[in-house]
Amino acid sequence: MSKKAILLHRKLQGKIFIESKISNLSPKNLQLIYTPGVASVCKEIIKNPESKYVLTSKGNNIAIITDGTRLLGLGNVGADASLPVMEGKSVIYRKYGKLSAFPICLNTTDKKKIVGIVEAIEPMFSAINLEDIESPKVLEIYKQLEKRLKIPVFHDDGQGTAIVTLAGLINALKIVKKNLSEIKIIVVGSGSAGYFVGKLLNFAGCQNIIMLDSKGVIYKNRKNNMNKYKIEIAKITNPKEKGQLSEVIKNADVFIGVSGIKDLLKLEAIKTMNKNPIVFALTNPYPEINPYDAKKGGVKIIATGSFLYKNTINNAIVFPYLMRSILDLKIQKITMDILYATSLAIAKTIPDQKLSPNNIIPSIENKALQKNITKSLKNLKLQE
Amino acid sequence: MSKKAILLHRKLQGKIFIESKISNLSPKNLQLIYTPGVASVCKEIIKNPESKYVLTSKGNNIAIITDGTRLLGLGNVGADASLPVMEGKSVIYRKYGKLSAFPICLNTTDKKKIVGIVEAIEPMFSAINLEDIESPKVLEIYKQLEKRLKIPVFHDDGQGTAIVTLAGLINALKIVKKNLSEIKIIVVGSGSAGYFVGKLLNFAGCQNIIMLDSKGVIYKNRKNNMNKYKIEIAKITNPKEKGQLSEVIKNADVFIGVSGIKDLLKLEAIKTMNKNPIVFALTNPYPEINPYDAKKGGVKIIATGSFLYKNTINNAIVFPYLMRSILDLKIQKITMDILYATSLAIAKTIPDQKLSPNNIIPSIENKALQKNITKSLKNLKLQE
Repeated sequence: MSKKAILLHRKLQGKIFIESKISNLSPKNLQLIYTPGVASVCKEIIKNPESKYVLTSKGNNIAIITDGTRLLGLGNVGADASLPVMEGKSVIYRKYGKLSAFPICLNTTDKKKIVGIVEAIEPMFSAINLEDIESPKVLEIYKQLEKRLKIPVFHDDGQGTAIVTLAGLINALKIVKKNLSEIKIIVVGSGSAGYFVGKLLNFAGCQNIIMLDSKGVIYKNRKNNMNKYKIEIAKITNPKEKGQLSEVIKNADVFIGVSGIKDLLKLEAIKTMNKNPIVFALTNPYPEINPYDAKKGGVKIIATGSFLYKNTINNAIVFPYLMRSILDLKIQKITMDILYATSLAIAKTIPDQKLSPNNIIPSIENKALQKNITKSLKNLKLQE
Repeated sequence: MSKKAILLHRKLQGKIFIESKISNLSPKNLQLIYTPGVASVCKEIIKNPESKYVLTSKGNNIAIITDGTRLLGLGNVGADASLPVMEGKSVIYRKYGKLSAFPICLNTTDKKKIVGIVEAIEPMFSAINLEDIESPKVLEIYKQLEKRLKIPVFHDDGQGTAIVTLAGLINALKIVKKNLSEIKIIVVGSGSAGYFVGKLLNFAGCQNIIMLDSKGVIYKNRKNNMNKYKIEIAKITNPKEKGQLSEVIKNADVFIGVSGIKDLLKLEAIKTMNKNPIVFALTNPYPEINPYDAKKGGVKIIATGSFLYKNTINNAIVFPYLMRSILDLKIQKITMDILYATSLAIAKTIPDQKLSPNNIIPSIENKALQKNITKSLKNLKLQE
């Protein structure tokens, strides 16, 4: 796999390129698209600023912003090494969202500078996708940008992961006939993915969510290794428990791993879970448990973030379609309502009669995804 | 023209888009170009940083940086209104240089911030093209970036204009049988275009260049409206003259307008020039003199920056080809030697026997341009 991937990339010399919509550059055409004709287009934008959305590519452009501090499961690898991942995202944006997504890989990890740069480059884009920036810094950046920009900001690792996780969970629970409001859910990992997963599960009606970080269970008034996002999470999760994963996983119905740690989940722990355990081992590139081991260990429904296995719970199923809908519907802010409505739309893309333990989440190629998400967000907009 | 240009832009909804090189996103392909396979490509770049030039699109990517402070002849119109021009450049880069040029239109006009942003986004790109930034700020930015970046910085309005101007002049002088080292040249406009035109003409051997700004002739120890670039220019031009254009144009052989002022050059002034006057009225979108008027007024050879007329002296003839050569030859710095060699290569693209007053500069579509420039710069590299 490694060798094959490197060979393919070497052959392609980049997975994306900028293409022109005009192939005939006769002097007559140059007069229109370049000088002197283009000046009248500039003047039109000065006169009527909103026309920039139709007179330029802005209306279809997204920026993928990263500083390479938290790339996949690789950690802080820097901007250069993040390029192949950002280009991969751009390829997916093109294919499934028909969007132009520009990778902007930044040679700085300074929060204030990143916010300033994104603010400065806003004119070219209709939305921002924050990607693979370390937590909690990324949450600060996200909140700052939401305040300062006129265009929507999508925090893919957080919001995208939360959406697809909830979508998968809704379908998995239908199969095991359990109710979201009655189950016990363990979420391991309290970076930006964990933060949004916790918030969205709570928003969707989960009453018993236990979140853990590297120090164990997060609870109100815990002293060490806290930050304001964990404090926020502690308020809406875990009414009473303390301790480590091996203790709190007892009687859990669902394990959600967004930990970044390969093989974190052990078979002994799974044995203590409730009947028909559901495991979403979402860390990439290597999940918290190998799905074959999990199945052998008694897990009823296993999903990972990888395209290697069935049940791929990867935000790639979300971002191209959601962003397309957001741009088409001119949505300004990606609220919890939008996250929730998108989860429901993705979940129902698989009809109930087709659900099975190996089929809880639609394939990224499912043609109904776009239609369902747009319809769902349109209804939401009408309700406002 | 105006209406037609706006209609075309409205129909296109952007002249560029990001295209993917992979259309088949089967799970197998996603495993290679996205997760988990892409992780090995990232690791390869960490191990061997130079591999980023072949494993990603970086090797073919250019950033077009503007803050919209000096757009065409429109002045300070801001980032939004600059988009159509930058997309036009990107279209030309694609067509003639086979390059991916990303417009980066900045919502800040602060020199320090612009330098910081370009430094931060360097990882994605193999070269920087500075565009339509006001002077002398752009010269400061250019010099700072040249020091700080590992990739070459091209100052298109300055260096590109100087290259194509000298190329046209070399051919025009062949027609009128005058020698570069013996003629008197008037350059009106001492922004970044004027600065580089003056420097390159001097480098090429011109002994008698008179440069003017809005206050008249620039000379050593002039008190008002000077800056360090004009002081530099004063050292290498104008050995003795003072006064206004109407005075110093007397007995000039060549007038070069990079003034930004429409209809600046009057017929009475032309009448005082030497025999067989050459006029390059390069301001866009409206030249310093209408070429038909100039011809009627006795000008032997007239050129403009516009694609509306014969003899288009526009840096569009330079930038796609020069940048392609620079990337292919892995040139790190765009020196005066490179500017000069490129001028010579462009000039000789028209064989002597085909030169005529209406044919002094090759068309942008001339297939020999790329070959000639690359050959010329390769020879230069071999001499180092």
